[in-house]
Amino acid sequence: MTVIDLNADLGEGFGRWRLTDDEELLSVVTSANVACGFHAGDPATMRRVCELAAARGVTIGAQVSYRDLAGFGRRAMDVPPAELAAEVAYQIGALEVFARAAGARVAYVKPHGALYNRVVHDQEQAGAVVEGVLLADAALPVLGLPGSRLLQLAARAGLPAVTEAFADRAYTDEGTLVPRGRDGAVVTDPEAVVERSVGLACSGAVTAHSGTRIQVRARSLCLHGDTPGAVELARRVCERLVAAGVRLEAFA
Amino acid sequence: MTVIDLNADLGEGFGRWRLTDDEELLSVVTSANVACGFHAGDPATMRRVCELAAARGVTIGAQVSYRDLAGFGRRAMDVPPAELAAEVAYQIGALEVFARAAGARVAYVKPHGALYNRVVHDQEQAGAVVEGVLLADAALPVLGLPGSRLLQLAARAGLPAVTEAFADRAYTDEGTLVPRGRDGAVVTDPEAVVERSVGLACSGAVTAHSGTRIQVRARSLCLHGDTPGAVELARRVCERLVAAGVRLEAFA
Amino acid sequence: MTVIDLNADLGEGFGRWRLTDDEELLSVVTSANVACGFHAGDPATMRRVCELAAARGVTIGAQVSYRDLAGFGRRAMDVPPAELAAEVAYQIGALEVFARAAGARVAYVKPHGALYNRVVHDQEQAGAVVEGVLLADAALPVLGLPGSRLLQLAARAGLPAVTEAFADRAYTDEGTLVPRGRDGAVVTDPEAVVERSVGLACSGAVTAHSGTRIQVRARSLCLHGDTPGAVELARRVCERLVAAGVRLEAFA
Amino acid sequence: MTVIDLNADLGEGFGRWRLTDDEELLSVVTSANVACGFHAGDPATMRRVCELAAARGVTIGAQVSYRDLAGFGRRAMDVPPAELAAEVAYQIGALEVFARAAGARVAYVKPHGALYNRVVHDQEQAGAVVEGVLLADAALPVLGLPGSRLLQLAARAGLPAVTEAFADRAYTDEGTLVPRGRDGAVVTDPEAVVERSVGLACSGAVTAHSGTRIQVRARSLCLHGDTPGAVELARRVCERLVAAGVRLEAFA
Repeated sequence: MTVIDLNADLGEGFGRWRLTDDEELLSVVTSANVACGFHAGDPATMRRVCELAAARGVTIGAQVSYRDLAGFGRRAMDVPPAELAAEVAYQIGALEVFARAAGARVAYVKPHGALYNRVVHDQEQAGAVVEGVLLADAALPVLGLPGSRLLQLAARAGLPAVTEAFADRAYTDEGTLVPRGRDGAVVTDPEAVVERSVGLACSGAVTAHSGTRIQVRARSLCLHGDTPGAVELARRVCERLVAAGVRLEAFA
Repeated sequence: MTVIDLNADLGEGFGRWRLTDDEELLSVVTSANVACGFHAGDPATMRRVCELAAARGVTIGAQVSYRDLAGFGRRAMDVPPAELAAEVAYQIGALEVFARAAGARVAYVKPHGALYNRVVHDQEQAGAVVEGVLLADAALPVLGLPGSRLLQLAARAGLPAVTEAFADRAYTDEGTLVPRGRDGAVVTDPEAVVERSVGLACSGAVTAHSGTRIQVRARSLCLHGDTPGAVELARRVCERLVAAGVRLEAFA
Repeated sequence: MTVIDLNADLGEGFGRWRLTDDEELLSVVTSANVACGFHAGDPATMRRVCELAAARGVTIGAQVSYRDLAGFGRRAMDVPPAELAAEVAYQIGALEVFARAAGARVAYVKPHGALYNRVVHDQEQAGAVVEGVLLADAALPVLGLPGSRLLQLAARAGLPAVTEAFADRAYTDEGTLVPRGRDGAVVTDPEAVVERSVGLACSGAVTAHSGTRIQVRARSLCLHGDTPGAVELARRVCERLVAAGVRLEAFA
Repeated sequence: MTVIDLNADLGEGFGRWRLTDDEELLSVVTSANVACGFHAGDPATMRRVCELAAARGVTIGAQVSYRDLAGFGRRAMDVPPAELAAEVAYQIGALEVFARAAGARVAYVKPHGALYNRVVHDQEQAGAVVEGVLLADAALPVLGLPGSRLLQLAARAGLPAVTEAFADRAYTDEGTLVPRGRDGAVVTDPEAVVERSVGLACSGAVTAHSGTRIQVRARSLCLHGDTPGAVELARRVCERLVAAGVRLEAFA
């Protein structure tokens, strides 16, 4: 039977501000990427999201980021590797306290935003993220793009390297994401997103931006939670996957 | 045999800035209060201080603070209890990752600056700090002022409540500290500080600001590391305590 | 003819986050309290709000706050007066550059959140805010609560002291606001808010929490923009004031 | 007569932390690059430095930076141009209030750290910095590296473009700086720094890293203030320039 994980970014508020409907999303996904305070995620929000996730049996992951609240972690930064490794470990540790208090644990790490994109190719920063994960826990899975430098280095370091795909993002023929900002980079038609989700889960394939059919093998699908209609779309993806005989299950 | 702990605030830099000579102080003290990023303490510094402390066998404590880099945590803040508890837990968790990576652990918690002073009397904030500690670890000792609300509530919650005294601060007849800014609040004569240290350790007594002799029973002495001559003074205190037959030993 | 100003807090987002519908509110109010980066308000948002305000002829004011993004400026802080004065001036100067670039200017100053409440009674902090305003501009009006220490000290320093009232907040018999969190502190019934607005503008009176009728003379009414239905309510207040023969006009 | 400006970075503390001996440096330099809060420089420090500079007749410049206190502005960031322009303007405006209060004004702008290096080549960010300066003041000089994209775009926009040279940094044959971290990037011998200063001022030439003599025409020399012996070295440079018949004079 085909098995897939659904992950989404959660707890992306800060203080007075909120982005995502954490409670609703947690009734759909199997893995929660929880913001750890560097791009979003104040401590009280982290605590609440961990409690909600644990209560629903959703797996908790640390979504680590550059230190950039003003840019929501979307501005690439040339952080020296030793600083970046320590910043990654700091965020994981901070989340761990709330996961444990809720009776769970931090079960994986996923970089956020500009750091996510950077470690697809940047050997030095990818290595720093892996070093940061190792500081926190030498057996912690890392979630990222198939073929990314991050997953290569994670695997080499003995960390489980878990692949993910994006049903609402256009792919190049090489299996990388068409950068945001380019025409057609984001798939906005809900039915198309649902179909691509099923295709990715069942056949490990998706139609690239060029029209070519490409292979994208992923253990997890990432759903975006900060767009209008996000929760409704997530539910539809979920239902259609189940209808297609896919079992939804966290990887960690 | 009389036993005392010597604690000092360490890792109080942030990024490019440094305050304390961490390496030298770690060769003197038995317990290191490590800044956790809210008043000072970037992740790379936290990591380095934990590694140095572990290598020297110095016990690591989390020095938790209000979120106030600009004010170095010295500006009291009316933080709602739920936020404060989560902020305290966040800081402990972040430090824990570096303590563990260094082969040690966070062995106690001590509030910093304005939070330290506030929880002497403020029931609500003292309770929030205790709640934050409990979120992180239900058996973590709390270091504070004898008779403080913080230590009362910590003890009531089952946390080891550890007392400390200040050899370089003037005391009121009631055993509280004369507030900084008042005349004579800080004892600046090194020899006086050394003598008061020995008196506090050996007889649990000190001469108050009024001239009265008062009892101040403490398991730990706090040395300040951010003043000129701090390391030299710490060494003298250390030597004189040993010469007086006092055993220097961490409480945790 | 009765004249009243309508002011609202605007630009209260930060980076990725938004709170208020700035564009809609700017079509209703006559004065915009623009967040300056300490509790909310990134530079790009400040620029945009100033451009929108200038284009609509809405007067621009600097809404100055404690440095507290995590608490949205709602946590009172014991900031030493010299620091607070400089922080206030810093915020005014930062906004001034965008107001001027939009062909306007910062025409008044209003404290935000916990600072607003603190300077009602706190002589030292009220004096620091006044000092900060004077550093920026010795003729800048200050907007605040009637009878507040802030307005007294502003007037004494030669700054125009402008009073405001809150149609959606309950008043004590002494004319101060019932603290948020108390039962009935916020008036939630839209029709009641509209009626209180008209009463405050036309007769300078409002029914206090106790049922007593009290005098509250104010040159400006503060509308809240961060609640559901805020824009719609603001429009109704506006229409009913006009229907009651009140002229809406900025004070500065 | 040969005329040169001496500039140094000042006010590079934040809250409790200090880096430079502002008071001493201000008795040597003719232009002060004042940190504006994004990489360093709390408001109270900015105020104090402006007062000291104005009292000594030293020209005040805004040293603008990426928003990166943790990295002291030394980590390059991919800030979108509209955000960067607004961030630059924000910093200039914030400093302007203290310069004016001291009876002076912000007389020029100089980027700091990673932003300084980035705008040597990066067309987009250089343009954003120029846009930020124009938002603040359409006649404000910009200080930077000769031949940099920044100075080219500044000149094209009608802003005075002022060149500077570094007596303590190694140059490539093309007249750019040898990146920090490379061997020999920083000239540490004080006498060599002094001689290079005189050479740069009097003959507009310096020996490059390769040994070749190259032309570096600059209206200003940058002295570093955050190294041990910085003040003493600055004094020696100053004395030798005067002895060589050079007039020290701000460019703005």
